[in-house]
Amino acid sequence: MKHNFYAGPAILSKKVLTKASEAAINFNNSGLSILEISHRSKDFVEVMEKAEALVCELLQISDDYKVLFLTGGASSQFYMTAMNLLNENEKAGYVDTGAWSTKAIKEANLFGKAEVTASSKDKNYSYIPKDYSVDPDYKYLHITSNNTIFGTQYASFPDIDVPMIGDMSSDIFSRSFDHRKFDVIYAGAQKNLGPAGVSLVIVKKNILGRVQREIPSMLNYQTHIDKNSSFNTPPVFPIYVSMLSLEWLKDFGGIPAIAQRNEEKANLIYKAIDDSPLFECPVSKEDRSKMNVVFMPTKEGIDDAFLKMAESANCIGIIGHRSVGGYRASIYNAMPTESVKVLADVINEFSQIHG
Amino acid sequence: MKHNFYAGPAILSKKVLTKASEAAINFNNSGLSILEISHRSKDFVEVMEKAEALVCELLQISDDYKVLFLTGGASSQFYMTAMNLLNENEKAGYVDTGAWSTKAIKEANLFGKAEVTASSKDKNYSYIPKDYSVDPDYKYLHITSNNTIFGTQYASFPDIDVPMIGDMSSDIFSRSFDHRKFDVIYAGAQKNLGPAGVSLVIVKKNILGRVQREIPSMLNYQTHIDKNSSFNTPPVFPIYVSMLSLEWLKDFGGIPAIAQRNEEKANLIYKAIDDSPLFECPVSKEDRSKMNVVFMPTKEGIDDAFLKMAESANCIGIIGHRSVGGYRASIYNAMPTESVKVLADVINEFSQIHG
Repeated sequence: MKHNFYAGPAILSKKVLTKASEAAINFNNSGLSILEISHRSKDFVEVMEKAEALVCELLQISDDYKVLFLTGGASSQFYMTAMNLLNENEKAGYVDTGAWSTKAIKEANLFGKAEVTASSKDKNYSYIPKDYSVDPDYKYLHITSNNTIFGTQYASFPDIDVPMIGDMSSDIFSRSFDHRKFDVIYAGAQKNLGPAGVSLVIVKKNILGRVQREIPSMLNYQTHIDKNSSFNTPPVFPIYVSMLSLEWLKDFGGIPAIAQRNEEKANLIYKAIDDSPLFECPVSKEDRSKMNVVFMPTKEGIDDAFLKMAESANCIGIIGHRSVGGYRASIYNAMPTESVKVLADVINEFSQIHG
Repeated sequence: MKHNFYAGPAILSKKVLTKASEAAINFNNSGLSILEISHRSKDFVEVMEKAEALVCELLQISDDYKVLFLTGGASSQFYMTAMNLLNENEKAGYVDTGAWSTKAIKEANLFGKAEVTASSKDKNYSYIPKDYSVDPDYKYLHITSNNTIFGTQYASFPDIDVPMIGDMSSDIFSRSFDHRKFDVIYAGAQKNLGPAGVSLVIVKKNILGRVQREIPSMLNYQTHIDKNSSFNTPPVFPIYVSMLSLEWLKDFGGIPAIAQRNEEKANLIYKAIDDSPLFECPVSKEDRSKMNVVFMPTKEGIDDAFLKMAESANCIGIIGHRSVGGYRASIYNAMPTESVKVLADVINEFSQIHG
């Protein structure tokens, strides 16, 4: 068995994969593949409705929000959020916690004034900025809840007086949080939700309609709210697998159960790193990500040997992002504790041999 | 065996579905699913390269064009084409052949002046307009090569003096054509290419860079040309299945072989309709689509009985689009001649019983 530590697209539950594989041949005993059925067919409309209902149930989304499944990943939301919420002469604040925030800022600046409200760039994004003041004129503050590349995560979300937008691509469904703190939440599916090709977007309905620009139909959140995410042909299969994944999460015990396991998994691996003289985690303890564990060698020349030992234990995808180096173990919802134990054991063993 | 006459998402070859199903469990003997691997992994980069190479080979695309696989369907290209090619003070021509053209015109008008150059609205879109003059000031002329709802198709493409954009969502890969007549060709995958969630876009490289507006990175063709369709996480699985489908088409004998079979299939079913006193095709003979066969009852009250007989012969998806009524049989590339024969037999038998 392979232990899949890829940062994304990332591990999905075996049960989900088995069902997805079956549906690619024979979906709902229809004699047809999920890949070749109409998105207007009763069977698929049920999938879409179920996926939306499961999101609402798992995150306890209130009625004043709408859950959407939109084509594309978070990169499409970088501009869609600003396009839908920010007039040209208005400003919004962005908390800069690394690569993804930087991209979001760049795209938002095409539509209004995106200001960097706070940044952890001074220490190579190794912490989450806190204690900053938020301009009351901001139309919104944008944050990135978890940062896959630098291994940081908001332990809690700020209390502010302007609307907040959260890019939760890499930690949605991993823990409980109050969605009412946010006006828009978005997440590319390919971490805790499903395969690449679809994004979950949760929009507070009453925030729309106040920007003056004309927005192409496909880029207007209102279009998709009005048409229940089926204005055009949606990405059928990515939505189906996301639905399976949400079912799996519900069966697992929902957010409280998965949050507890995520905590245990993170503790296991951070302990192995902290106990080792050969590795260190560059992230402030209170901001360590429970999804992406970034760790660095403390001396030179161990890179290859460690990766080789990890690989021989069937641990794959643990090389660090090219902009950071070192190692990264992504331990999303679908990763079993057993796989994390295997990697922790590799770290322990490697440290005993080479330490 | 079900005979899948859905208009889209639509039938895919059984071989493609079997391989897709296998890869959802174990891709390339990696021990991992195609749904959970990195888009930067060697295995997937090869898929993307192969998909692009197969498009170039099958359509004999020349080097001055770039083949892209972009997130979303044709609805996203309706605005992206205009956004990338039309300045606000410039005009483009659109040939209006029904619902899809109308949507393309609406979105283009947000970016420049989209003029209706010719239209077949006068006869409920039952023919393809010809013999119109094209304003030499147009930055481009946009046509929809095949019209799924009204069952019309360009038998040949116009010779004009301005660049041409072709929405070929529903007939690309179905027949030979000279891509050099077009500056942009786009096609949502979910007819002749793959499952929903990705579009094929073929762009003449030297036409870009002349519009003045700032374009979000994700919506700029140049971004995706520079990054080989991997600027962000692409829709991995829809691209993989598209690649399988292109392999299948190559094995089938490529465009000449499939075009011949498409001709045979279309002849079979149009003959059954023409021979029947109970049905008629509302489309001008020379403009009949070889992909979507639209036919109407010639007298009232046969709707249910015909659909029931078709269903009992395992023919599904033949109800006409709600805006047109009647019946529609979509007979895309992956549909075997045998399935078309089954439906032709149903038409013949029904006509004998009720005619």
